Amino acid sequence: MEEEKGLLIVLSGPSGVGKGTVRKAVFSEPDVQFAYSISATSRPMRPGEVDGVDYFFKTREQFERMIERDELLEYTEYVGNYYGTPVDYVQKTLAEGKDVFLEIEVEGAKQVRKKFPEGLFIFLIPPSLQELESRIKLRGTESIHLIENRLSVAKDELKMMGLYDYVVENDQVENAVQKIKAIVTAEHCRRSRVENRFKKILGVE
Amino acid sequence: MEEEKGLLIVLSGPSGVGKGTVRKAVFSEPDVQFAYSISATSRPMRPGEVDGVDYFFKTREQFERMIERDELLEYTEYVGNYYGTPVDYVQKTLAEGKDVFLEIEVEGAKQVRKKFPEGLFIFLIPPSLQELESRIKLRGTESIHLIENRLSVAKDELKMMGLYDYVVENDQVENAVQKIKAIVTAEHCRRSRVENRFKKILGVE
Repeated sequence: MEEEKGLLIVLSGPSGVGKGTVRKAVFSEPDVQFAYSISATSRPMRPGEVDGVDYFFKTREQFERMIERDELLEYTEYVGNYYGTPVDYVQKTLAEGKDVFLEIEVEGAKQVRKKFPEGLFIFLIPPSLQELESRIKLRGTESIHLIENRLSVAKDELKMMGLYDYVVENDQVENAVQKIKAIVTAEHCRRSRVENRFKKILGVE
Repeated sequence: MEEEKGLLIVLSGPSGVGKGTVRKAVFSEPDVQFAYSISATSRPMRPGEVDGVDYFFKTREQFERMIERDELLEYTEYVGNYYGTPVDYVQKTLAEGKDVFLEIEVEGAKQVRKKFPEGLFIFLIPPSLQELESRIKLRGTESIHLIENRLSVAKDELKMMGLYDYVVENDQVENAVQKIKAIVTAEHCRRSRVENRFKKILGVE
């Protein structure tokens, strides 16, 4: 039987929308089987974060060496820090027929779209701009200046919605998780992805 | 807030694949809210069927009058009987923002595709041709001649897979139901359907 190739699932959305929280909740679902691609970053570790779990934490110098060696599927410099996706793991895992889940910034998602147009691009949005603002403030890990910067960036990022396949409202984490799971299930039924395999099984020319 | 229009969901597939069983199981799910469009048919009622529930049962003459008056979204004559979808109910319900679920034959789905290209077309397939054959035989309501006719038609119908958006394997009814629900949930998140509404809510130009 012809094997189905894995799906590259890209979850992105504006700064402060809760991508990380939703990603963690997706992976804590008992029936979720896809591989999470851990990003690399040069930003400082936050309290509670673990190297190799939340991110691969790198110095700026280490990160720039990865860029030079073309070891990143995408990368972006955001509010003074690098974020990127190591390419090796993604390609290997897709080839094995496993779905890979990326949670990345909007700029990075744009780069991935160019390299993997067949990927599944999901845009997470807040219920309202007011809600986004209070989420960014609640995080409380950044200065007033950074908060304003993030809000302004987030508004620009919302305009990138048109580049995505799906839009999921993060009104409640559990709702967003169920929608993301449904989108992945549906994509595995998409005719263009499965037609050849099923026609072979059923002996249809 | 701009209201989302309802989705027209079309479930079809080859003769004997179990469309009716899957449709009933979908509608018995507690969280399924879409409207079922009851078909009209000129075929004789089978034991256990109820007029106005399983079908609107019509005489050939009554059905042909509906065709003449253009009161059907689609219709087909299949193994000597007419099957069709009254158009009124479908249009009214979609306009109210409710999803409408059609379970129809392959020929009819082709006609609906022409009138509603934005519909959600799901093709139900058997796990194998052998399985399809035994399901057709098990039904036991038809003569040997009709069974052979149905099998031959079913094989031709499988070739229509390419006209659909999604393919769902009916290996187990419960699996098929969960996939169909996921497809509908995903389609309600499809960017092209929701972009305008969300951009308005978020004040994004």
